[in-house]
Amino acid sequence: MSDLLQQLDAVLESRRQAAEGSRAAEGSDAAEGSDAAEGSYVASLHRKGLNKILEKVGEEATEVILAAKDVENGGDRQAMIAETADLWFHSLVMLSHLGADSQDVLDELARRFGLSGLEEKASRAQD
Amino acid sequence: MSDLLQQLDAVLESRRQAAEGSRAAEGSDAAEGSDAAEGSYVASLHRKGLNKILEKVGEEATEVILAAKDVENGGDRQAMIAETADLWFHSLVMLSHLGADSQDVLDELARRFGLSGLEEKASRAQD
Amino acid sequence: MSDLLQQLDAVLESRRQAAEGSRAAEGSDAAEGSDAAEGSYVASLHRKGLNKILEKVGEEATEVILAAKDVENGGDRQAMIAETADLWFHSLVMLSHLGADSQDVLDELARRFGLSGLEEKASRAQD
Amino acid sequence: MSDLLQQLDAVLESRRQAAEGSRAAEGSDAAEGSDAAEGSYVASLHRKGLNKILEKVGEEATEVILAAKDVENGGDRQAMIAETADLWFHSLVMLSHLGADSQDVLDELARRFGLSGLEEKASRAQD
Repeated sequence: MSDLLQQLDAVLESRRQAAEGSRAAEGSDAAEGSDAAEGSYVASLHRKGLNKILEKVGEEATEVILAAKDVENGGDRQAMIAETADLWFHSLVMLSHLGADSQDVLDELARRFGLSGLEEKASRAQD
Repeated sequence: MSDLLQQLDAVLESRRQAAEGSRAAEGSDAAEGSDAAEGSYVASLHRKGLNKILEKVGEEATEVILAAKDVENGGDRQAMIAETADLWFHSLVMLSHLGADSQDVLDELARRFGLSGLEEKASRAQD
Repeated sequence: MSDLLQQLDAVLESRRQAAEGSRAAEGSDAAEGSDAAEGSYVASLHRKGLNKILEKVGEEATEVILAAKDVENGGDRQAMIAETADLWFHSLVMLSHLGADSQDVLDELARRFGLSGLEEKASRAQD
Repeated sequence: MSDLLQQLDAVLESRRQAAEGSRAAEGSDAAEGSDAAEGSYVASLHRKGLNKILEKVGEEATEVILAAKDVENGGDRQAMIAETADLWFHSLVMLSHLGADSQDVLDELARRFGLSGLEEKASRAQD
């Protein structure tokens, strides 16, 4: 499970770099490599900038709330889970855009709850 | 890291049960155990119900957005990370309230990204 | 100014009725009149239902917040005004969808602030 | 009805000025006049600053959405109207904080819908 978020961080970091690469390449002859980035939704969010990413965070939060209310009234639980995945995903894109990642958030949660996340990270760092 | 979310799910599940226990115990002589629950912020959210939990999800999403804008303008990155932790935390409380947990969200993310979360879960289940 | 909101209520009410008309006409031979409704953004929101309308309310609230933060950092005030217009507009569509209108909201505001809105309405009702 | 929003703009402008006055008076001997401002919720929002005001806009948008979903499921329509009044009210405080008012928003709505708000304002300006 942990590895999932770490893998996702790595995917998001590569997409962010692709977006930067394609932006740097704009107007130059050396635009190779930008096609893949263009095709990427995440790279596109980075190029559109922070406001676009935060609009998505706001949208997904609203959709989580609506889906949860629908569960309360007999609706599909999987739809709520999918909307929560969208919300977490777009908050990971935001973190990546601003130079942070899921580990920072998990460390903060570990600190608050006295859980073992920090120790685990420390032990990993020694590997 | 993974263990962190699993530990948090376990904490949240116990708080939810405490909230149910104290609600069941209301008006009875057997109110023992409800004190701890009363003292718990999470148990209190569960007792107040889904709308209260979703209000918190909406509030925290707004605070994430404001903190991210402040980072863009030279503000503190740790504040944004702390607000994201708040957002994730309250979405975990919501999932718990509706009978789901972080694993459901991570499975959904793994499915979309073709990552190994599902396989990992399957292998864990065989231990 | 007042007349503006009343005019807008009237426009929104006619669009809502158009959406109902075109929905009622679906699958019948008498689909005339639905073209105009189809072309209308508001009628389309009504046909998609309350969740779609509320997604727009959430989106526009986020865009208001982002635009206001941008004003704080030297951005365009008119953009914030336009986003606020979007937010109010979609909340009027929501009110219309649920059988209320701007007058209900203004009456509520008048009540809280001890202002003369209610009296004004009462005097209008006697005309 | 129009007068209601204009009256509200005037109230909000005086509260904003009270907040500025009490802030200017801080640390001086001439703190008179700040008591009324301290007692005012709106003046307090202005003193806490834009983020606090925008947090309220986000909170109220969430509460509008929850109340509207509750109407869909048989809940009280007046609660939704009251939450919408809260949302409009806090967006008016935001406008005031950033040097705009309800008239700016209504002009924008009039422009989009080809309604008579602008003309009305123009004729008022000639009085």
